[in-house]
Amino acid sequence: MESPLKTQKHHFGVQVLLRTVAIGTTMAAIWLMMTSKEIAIVFGLSFEAKYSYMPAFKFYACANGIACAFIAASLLLFFIFGRIGLSPTCFFILFLHDLFTMLLVLSSISAATAVGLVGRNGNSHAGWMPICDNLTKFCFRVTLSTVFGCISFILLLVLTIMAANKYRQISV
Amino acid sequence: MESPLKTQKHHFGVQVLLRTVAIGTTMAAIWLMMTSKEIAIVFGLSFEAKYSYMPAFKFYACANGIACAFIAASLLLFFIFGRIGLSPTCFFILFLHDLFTMLLVLSSISAATAVGLVGRNGNSHAGWMPICDNLTKFCFRVTLSTVFGCISFILLLVLTIMAANKYRQISV
Repeated sequence: MESPLKTQKHHFGVQVLLRTVAIGTTMAAIWLMMTSKEIAIVFGLSFEAKYSYMPAFKFYACANGIACAFIAASLLLFFIFGRIGLSPTCFFILFLHDLFTMLLVLSSISAATAVGLVGRNGNSHAGWMPICDNLTKFCFRVTLSTVFGCISFILLLVLTIMAANKYRQISV
Repeated sequence: MESPLKTQKHHFGVQVLLRTVAIGTTMAAIWLMMTSKEIAIVFGLSFEAKYSYMPAFKFYACANGIACAFIAASLLLFFIFGRIGLSPTCFFILFLHDLFTMLLVLSSISAATAVGLVGRNGNSHAGWMPICDNLTKFCFRVTLSTVFGCISFILLLVLTIMAANKYRQISV
């Protein structure tokens, strides 16, 4: 059986690793989304595609930016207070922090994916044409960005469950 | 200070109330979405709008249906096991149950809202025309349905935080 000190060190290491990777994936998601730009020429007419033309994609970039800042702040606080041991209240705040950050990331992924699917498949009933046939690069970057968003979401889900569990352990 | 028995009874009552209201709001959200139907006549041509024509709206109805069934199952189990007192493991399972149900509801709300906003405002860059000017009833019902979805989400969020807190208390 592991000693409490070894368990605490192990928990600290896992937390730092997961939060660092989550910062990386949210930054990759923002970068891929914000640099998604393509000019297509259809029937002799040129038109430009930019992430900022779709409110759902703007929300996605903003949400990931906020999430990235929050995870970075939590990592900093974890470095300051983590080594001296957090109180149950601190762990409850950490749990709420991870929970709300995860919810923000998930809602942005869902919104971007829903609009992205309209862009790929269109909707004949509403008269909305698919746009991805002429904007393959743009759509690929947006898809890749949402993949990184999904990884961030999974990491935040693990962190939320870990925080809830640690909150119980620390209170016992 | 309240006695442990009184606190347990109070917690049981709040759980039953929140879960019952959440069943009602998810059912209202499903009903409003699935009965959203309108026939509009534009330039002499009639066209029909149905929730099933939009994949995001179908996902919303399905997600709320699954959430409703899960909340009903948890309420039933709460009635069976709640009175005799749940173990920490049971509370952890309840926490995970409420967490995943909430995530399902939130992702469906975000997807439906993102597509609903395209329906209301259109997107001139993608050449997608707004459809709500001619389908006011349909859009109103969809909006009302997402409002009920948001109430379900808030109730599930409260239940998730309560479950995490109770999981700690029961383990102490």
